[in-house]
Amino acid sequence: MPSTTVQLLLTGNELMTGDIVDSNSAMMAQILKEQGLEISRKVTVADALSLLVSEIDYMATNSDILIINGGLGPTVDDLTSEALARATQVPLAEHPEALAHITQWAEQRGAELNAPNLKQALLPSGCQIIANSCGSAVGFSVNYKGCDIYCTPGVPRELKVMFNEQIVPKIRQKLPDNLICDVTRLQVFGYGESSLQKLIDEQLPDWPESIDLGFRAGMPLLEVKLTTNTKQGLAIKPLWQNKLSALLKEHIIAEVIDKPKSLAENLLTKLQHHKLKITTAESCTGGLIASKLTEISGSSNSFEAGYVTYSNAMKTEMLGVCPKLLAEVGAVSEAVVIEMAKGALSKSGADLAIAVSGVAGPNGGSDEKPVGMVWLAWGSHNDIKTQCLRLPYARRQFQQYVTAIGLDLLRRYQQGLSSTPNYVVERAFQQQSS
Amino acid sequence: MPSTTVQLLLTGNELMTGDIVDSNSAMMAQILKEQGLEISRKVTVADALSLLVSEIDYMATNSDILIINGGLGPTVDDLTSEALARATQVPLAEHPEALAHITQWAEQRGAELNAPNLKQALLPSGCQIIANSCGSAVGFSVNYKGCDIYCTPGVPRELKVMFNEQIVPKIRQKLPDNLICDVTRLQVFGYGESSLQKLIDEQLPDWPESIDLGFRAGMPLLEVKLTTNTKQGLAIKPLWQNKLSALLKEHIIAEVIDKPKSLAENLLTKLQHHKLKITTAESCTGGLIASKLTEISGSSNSFEAGYVTYSNAMKTEMLGVCPKLLAEVGAVSEAVVIEMAKGALSKSGADLAIAVSGVAGPNGGSDEKPVGMVWLAWGSHNDIKTQCLRLPYARRQFQQYVTAIGLDLLRRYQQGLSSTPNYVVERAFQQQSS
Repeated sequence: MPSTTVQLLLTGNELMTGDIVDSNSAMMAQILKEQGLEISRKVTVADALSLLVSEIDYMATNSDILIINGGLGPTVDDLTSEALARATQVPLAEHPEALAHITQWAEQRGAELNAPNLKQALLPSGCQIIANSCGSAVGFSVNYKGCDIYCTPGVPRELKVMFNEQIVPKIRQKLPDNLICDVTRLQVFGYGESSLQKLIDEQLPDWPESIDLGFRAGMPLLEVKLTTNTKQGLAIKPLWQNKLSALLKEHIIAEVIDKPKSLAENLLTKLQHHKLKITTAESCTGGLIASKLTEISGSSNSFEAGYVTYSNAMKTEMLGVCPKLLAEVGAVSEAVVIEMAKGALSKSGADLAIAVSGVAGPNGGSDEKPVGMVWLAWGSHNDIKTQCLRLPYARRQFQQYVTAIGLDLLRRYQQGLSSTPNYVVERAFQQQSS
Repeated sequence: MPSTTVQLLLTGNELMTGDIVDSNSAMMAQILKEQGLEISRKVTVADALSLLVSEIDYMATNSDILIINGGLGPTVDDLTSEALARATQVPLAEHPEALAHITQWAEQRGAELNAPNLKQALLPSGCQIIANSCGSAVGFSVNYKGCDIYCTPGVPRELKVMFNEQIVPKIRQKLPDNLICDVTRLQVFGYGESSLQKLIDEQLPDWPESIDLGFRAGMPLLEVKLTTNTKQGLAIKPLWQNKLSALLKEHIIAEVIDKPKSLAENLLTKLQHHKLKITTAESCTGGLIASKLTEISGSSNSFEAGYVTYSNAMKTEMLGVCPKLLAEVGAVSEAVVIEMAKGALSKSGADLAIAVSGVAGPNGGSDEKPVGMVWLAWGSHNDIKTQCLRLPYARRQFQQYVTAIGLDLLRRYQQGLSSTPNYVVERAFQQQSS
């Protein structure tokens, strides 16, 4: 844990009513994290003077850095300057630099300076100005009770520039030079948050405290984050990251370098590298697998055709599945998904195919073929693999999970991996033979 | 101002690090506003026990209702239960109802109950359970120092259902009976938030203050909400709702009765009523239209086949588009989308088709056919309509917008509407004839 305590005070009626979603604090948190700093507490209040004054006083007393966001505008509900003046017990005064900025800002726009604008130059006496290169509201800072208080604009575009260019350098000046902040993010597929926690508790019970282990559940990928802020942690991190990799094996899709990639993007990168083409034959996912692939820019290099065969008749018409077979074993069957995959391969000329047929629900299930049951077939012309799973989720989650598994099975196939994925261990479905 | 004080405590390291943006509090604020309640203060803290305990104690002392969001999961960093127990000075105890829920939840998924899961049944002694129909974590509530404290899951999907179905009724019980809270929600497609605001400002300048007009932007639908909390507002509301309907005409898809329906669901309901079948021929949307249709339960009644023809060769192979035509006018052209629609109709035997071909970008654009340009063809065998639009959005948004427009054009076609939608007015693209 860093020793510098940072708190954040957000103000704005629109934040309280739900009319806008606050993205500013995530943005600042990300930037601060790069400096090894964490925001420990964040308070959001409506534009009410007494609320603001008491929050500022309390928060300044309990932190080294307090960032106040919003309330710098020209209207009557912009109260930050007045609240800060009251909290720090200084008068408001017209600030010459702020006035000059506002005057210049209006001149550049051919606008006349009006009374609301002039209000933006009334700041707590003795404060320091923080330049705003994108808007009329200057930021300002004061030191109160040993806490550095930075007042910043609520407009995200203005905030971002001011925060990066003006405030971070000021904060940085006061930080020790040797601050450590090392973060590794791994994309994992096939384990849920609790099953992975359990696995680590059991298999790596001595996991060191100096390496913080965090999970972020995202459908369908789970992000596992290893963070260390100490020299000791840094020294042993490679060893523990290796242990984790050995434990999770091919369930680790990739390490996040710049930004996370989807399963489809990871797969397409590999396919393109090997100049392989892929096709999809979808029943229960209804086009979702094709859609996930074509969401990725450049997918046309590896994907030409997708078949959404939602009825039995269309499985025959579009993919050549034998009508007699459909009548005998039903659409949700190993034999049919194999024929779907083969049909898609031969009609599209692709190298690899994924075919899926299942019971998405909520209706249409039977004892033999319950809701959540799905057959997958994947592979190439002479080598089709199959698997039956039971994924008892609501319709849309079922479709998303089948899609993710289909993409993962293709990735494993293409990489020549033979180990059994955890989702097969957990979800394999054995059809009762009659 | 309402006399009931509501505060919100959010917990989660991922909220502090900026890894996720909090959308839960906006969602809850919107729902509470419909009950005439406002959130007065919101505090967000990391997953740290001592922080949580002191916040809970302070906030409960200063509010009538405290909603705690997050920290109900199975992992070690989920601390809400323990923190609430400490703050309210009761022991943790295994709650039979919670245990039953988790056991049933695991059984339904064929999963073994593990130690982390069992932790989710350890709750503050004497608390009341709040059912969670979508996830493993039950919510719970206690009354402490006269404040009703509700603990809710951080997963937005789970929270939304629990909040609407379980918590709002509980809150409502304690509110005065004569509180008027009348809400009408309209689903609008074809106007953005600001263009609709401008239209209303210009065309209905006398909009009464007693009917609060709110917008909630959701891709692709915009929800327009008319809320009134006074008898006066209630009396004049029908008149003003009529004025709004006359202004927006067929851009209003539906009034939200129970829960919002997607464009696809609205369309499918109408198709099923008329026993009509639909097919899709997709290039730039890559299966997304088919996926939106098949997301809806019962879509198999109206949808049998979807063609994802991502390359020129596959447009010919799968839909019979003339190779010479493709070579002459290119895939993104009126003639080609017409042939795609006709091919899909004849091969699938459907009554209605939508075909799209466009430049999703970011690469592949030219002066003549820039990124964001798309041709759509829709209709039935003897009556195919076409339109070219320019939708200058990033790839995924472009695909989503084309999908939504395709579904809306089919809805208008099926209903026999001949008026020009606003998106055509705003986005029509005229190809330069050579």
